Amino acid sequence: METTTPNWLKKRADLSPERTALVFNNESWTFKEMYMMAEKSAGKIAGLLQKEKKRAAILLKNKPETIWFIHGLQLLGIQTVFLNSRLTAGELLFQIQDSEADLLIYDEDYSKTADDLNRLYAELQMISVKKLLEGPVSEPEIQKEFAFNEVCSIMYTSGTTGKPKGVLQTYGNHWWSASGSVLNIGLQENDSWLCTVPIFHISGFSILMRSVIYGIPVILMEKFDESAVNRLLKSGEVTIMSAVSSMLSRMLVELGEGNYHPHFRCMLVGGGPVPKPLLESCKERDIPVFQTYGMTETSSQIVTLSPEDSLRKLGSAGKSLFPSQIKIMREQKEAGANEEGEIFVKGPNVTLGYLKREEANRDSFKDGWFSTGDLGYKDEEGYVFILDRRSDLIISGGENVYPAEIEEVLLSHESVLEAGVTGIANPKWGQVPYGFIVAEKPVTEEEIISFCRERLAAFKVPQKIIQIEQMPRNGAGKLMRRHLTSLLT
Amino acid sequence: METTTPNWLKKRADLSPERTALVFNNESWTFKEMYMMAEKSAGKIAGLLQKEKKRAAILLKNKPETIWFIHGLQLLGIQTVFLNSRLTAGELLFQIQDSEADLLIYDEDYSKTADDLNRLYAELQMISVKKLLEGPVSEPEIQKEFAFNEVCSIMYTSGTTGKPKGVLQTYGNHWWSASGSVLNIGLQENDSWLCTVPIFHISGFSILMRSVIYGIPVILMEKFDESAVNRLLKSGEVTIMSAVSSMLSRMLVELGEGNYHPHFRCMLVGGGPVPKPLLESCKERDIPVFQTYGMTETSSQIVTLSPEDSLRKLGSAGKSLFPSQIKIMREQKEAGANEEGEIFVKGPNVTLGYLKREEANRDSFKDGWFSTGDLGYKDEEGYVFILDRRSDLIISGGENVYPAEIEEVLLSHESVLEAGVTGIANPKWGQVPYGFIVAEKPVTEEEIISFCRERLAAFKVPQKIIQIEQMPRNGAGKLMRRHLTSLLT
Repeated sequence: METTTPNWLKKRADLSPERTALVFNNESWTFKEMYMMAEKSAGKIAGLLQKEKKRAAILLKNKPETIWFIHGLQLLGIQTVFLNSRLTAGELLFQIQDSEADLLIYDEDYSKTADDLNRLYAELQMISVKKLLEGPVSEPEIQKEFAFNEVCSIMYTSGTTGKPKGVLQTYGNHWWSASGSVLNIGLQENDSWLCTVPIFHISGFSILMRSVIYGIPVILMEKFDESAVNRLLKSGEVTIMSAVSSMLSRMLVELGEGNYHPHFRCMLVGGGPVPKPLLESCKERDIPVFQTYGMTETSSQIVTLSPEDSLRKLGSAGKSLFPSQIKIMREQKEAGANEEGEIFVKGPNVTLGYLKREEANRDSFKDGWFSTGDLGYKDEEGYVFILDRRSDLIISGGENVYPAEIEEVLLSHESVLEAGVTGIANPKWGQVPYGFIVAEKPVTEEEIISFCRERLAAFKVPQKIIQIEQMPRNGAGKLMRRHLTSLLT
Repeated sequence: METTTPNWLKKRADLSPERTALVFNNESWTFKEMYMMAEKSAGKIAGLLQKEKKRAAILLKNKPETIWFIHGLQLLGIQTVFLNSRLTAGELLFQIQDSEADLLIYDEDYSKTADDLNRLYAELQMISVKKLLEGPVSEPEIQKEFAFNEVCSIMYTSGTTGKPKGVLQTYGNHWWSASGSVLNIGLQENDSWLCTVPIFHISGFSILMRSVIYGIPVILMEKFDESAVNRLLKSGEVTIMSAVSSMLSRMLVELGEGNYHPHFRCMLVGGGPVPKPLLESCKERDIPVFQTYGMTETSSQIVTLSPEDSLRKLGSAGKSLFPSQIKIMREQKEAGANEEGEIFVKGPNVTLGYLKREEANRDSFKDGWFSTGDLGYKDEEGYVFILDRRSDLIISGGENVYPAEIEEVLLSHESVLEAGVTGIANPKWGQVPYGFIVAEKPVTEEEIISFCRERLAAFKVPQKIIQIEQMPRNGAGKLMRRHLTSLLT
């Protein structure tokens, strides 16, 4: 029997109408008010779409309206395609067309990108937030229930080869992600979750879902700003925060010798391991760091390490959350303790698969287990250590950067014969991409970088281009990206 | 796609091996120890059963071994039939045969009942806890995962007519019940749940399930004892307790002018409405009462009222928990505010149905909604008020007593022509059953009562037998049980 629950925001507004749902700058909204805003937004959107339309893309900022629209789409039963605002028009176009989105809602600030998109794809129906809010309201037909197998959201992610793939996230996936987290860190009456990470990433969107499921406020910031964050964490208004390690370093520098309020009880740090000196500084200041491992395909965290283990199990991501499982496979068999292998995960928070990618889905799922492509091991106590993110993934300031995608652009330059990209440690961003090329004709670093800038989001553009004689390849001719680092002089 | 999770106790023992799982008298066990005991119990049981056997009945007390056996059965994937130790051998026999249990595990203290059962049903394989623990251990084949559609437990409940019915409770039902509760009352690091209610009832068993899912200890008592409970609640060791109103009254009398420890944060009171003076006494003493409505078919609470509303919404059971829904139906339509009707519930915590009762299942489920048979209404704010438990259900000291079952016994007496049973308010038990008869031949009250005692559990035996001239019936000849009260002189 398929699981269904009442529509979450509607139910929450019925159960806790007067509790605070959202705080943004100096304004706040209760769940009842949030529901009214979402219902109104649903009415605005319903007027634009024909009945059979079922997918809308959003190119929005961390602002209250974004939350109204996301919930508005859910009230209508329309799937939301979350677009990363850092991408170029060309990159966005691919995701919009691939997802067959019927509508694009964009923030005024992205009008230039919207114009570019319009030039590239005139058939796409698009509307700015401002215009949408000024438009007429229809009577929306509200989805009273959520079926757990229904797709709620689509977020794009890349892989070893080829184009980005749309990860299908169901209502069930988001519910189970929230359940796994609450059984790990608990739920207190005074809880509130600070969201400074982008809502278009699963790290941000999952905070919105937890807020309505748990009945706790989201404290939303348009952008991460260490001094504003520190003020909040000192005030006692925030009890939980999601961060990546580069944010945490900047916060500690700004904090100096200070401390956070004792109400602050959970700093959830994802997007790669937290360096030991940083963990030690946090321990000195009694900052409770929960290291975590997760991905778009697991609807956020799937493995989390509790603070009491953070130094004892230095570098570990912890154990899989209650509803989930993790195993390490090596030569078709489950690896023993401390044996490296590929990380597989299973659980009701794991995606159904990629949109329209039969081959990728066949490759990724084995007997109900999802192959992450990441490498790691479990120690004798079962704690998971991540060795290498899949496909030599580079994580730069919390954004996933896929070498293959940049290599494709490099190779499209007429002077480039071979290309390889790898991540280089960087104090501010954690890692940044470096490009290595074997040139066919003479070409300068500036030429290549500006070529990339036209085609790639800023965070994907290689910081350096290094010309080499020969790409490091293994016997089978496969590029050994990890060996590129040793070619730096 | 069917939901599965890791086996709960196994997973909990892996995630929080050193946390306390159970406290009983002066002993305690961690989750790791609980898992070891359960695994050992599974090994003992596995040796007794052939592979294809799938259901075991238990006639056990609130003791640690009971918990090991219940988890042991779950580790083996064997369904547990929970037998109420207050029933007579004849009543138990029906449930054992109806459920086709392959094995009965009973406590030494119930040896007499076991002997009676053996006389009545020689083919039944039965073993006492002591014998089982002395027996050999096999290597058990452990169920690593729980499928949410799989039946975990069966508990018997009666209705308007006929024999008791076995309620099928799946792993999913128990999970969702625990989820609904955690989203209502939260989860804190120091939480522990006091269990003085019988484990063979859903009120007790659901505490065991929450304990492994949440990772918090059960503080178990063999029997409810107000002074022992008050000592615990004053100590700060217990944060949550499940009770019925008659227990709560006895606790307050014993407590006198005292107070509980501020750590005690939730008194969940089910099994009928809490009288206003009792609520007021609780308020004076800052005892946080959560009134609740639920049944075996909803795997415990489905509607709960928070303490802040307990006096404002006096007599209300509250609103349905987050994953669930409730509606009032009147003449095939949803009733308006303050309109009485039949209570229907829906949610993933609601039973799949009754074992082998096609007709009852057809009658009870309408478009995914379960008809409780109870009457009630919602006020203008959506708070639910229960007017009458189904089929004039009598709740005596937390036990459900069904008039129809007692009437059947009364009618089987040769001197009785007509019979009617109703519940009469009682300061100690909340309600007790009274029997009304129209006699065919002269008969004494004592004769009838001793006749009932041989056939019914003690709590079902009418406290009084009143002889009347005529049964109150409506135009259609239906017995109006509620009118019986007015015939008392």
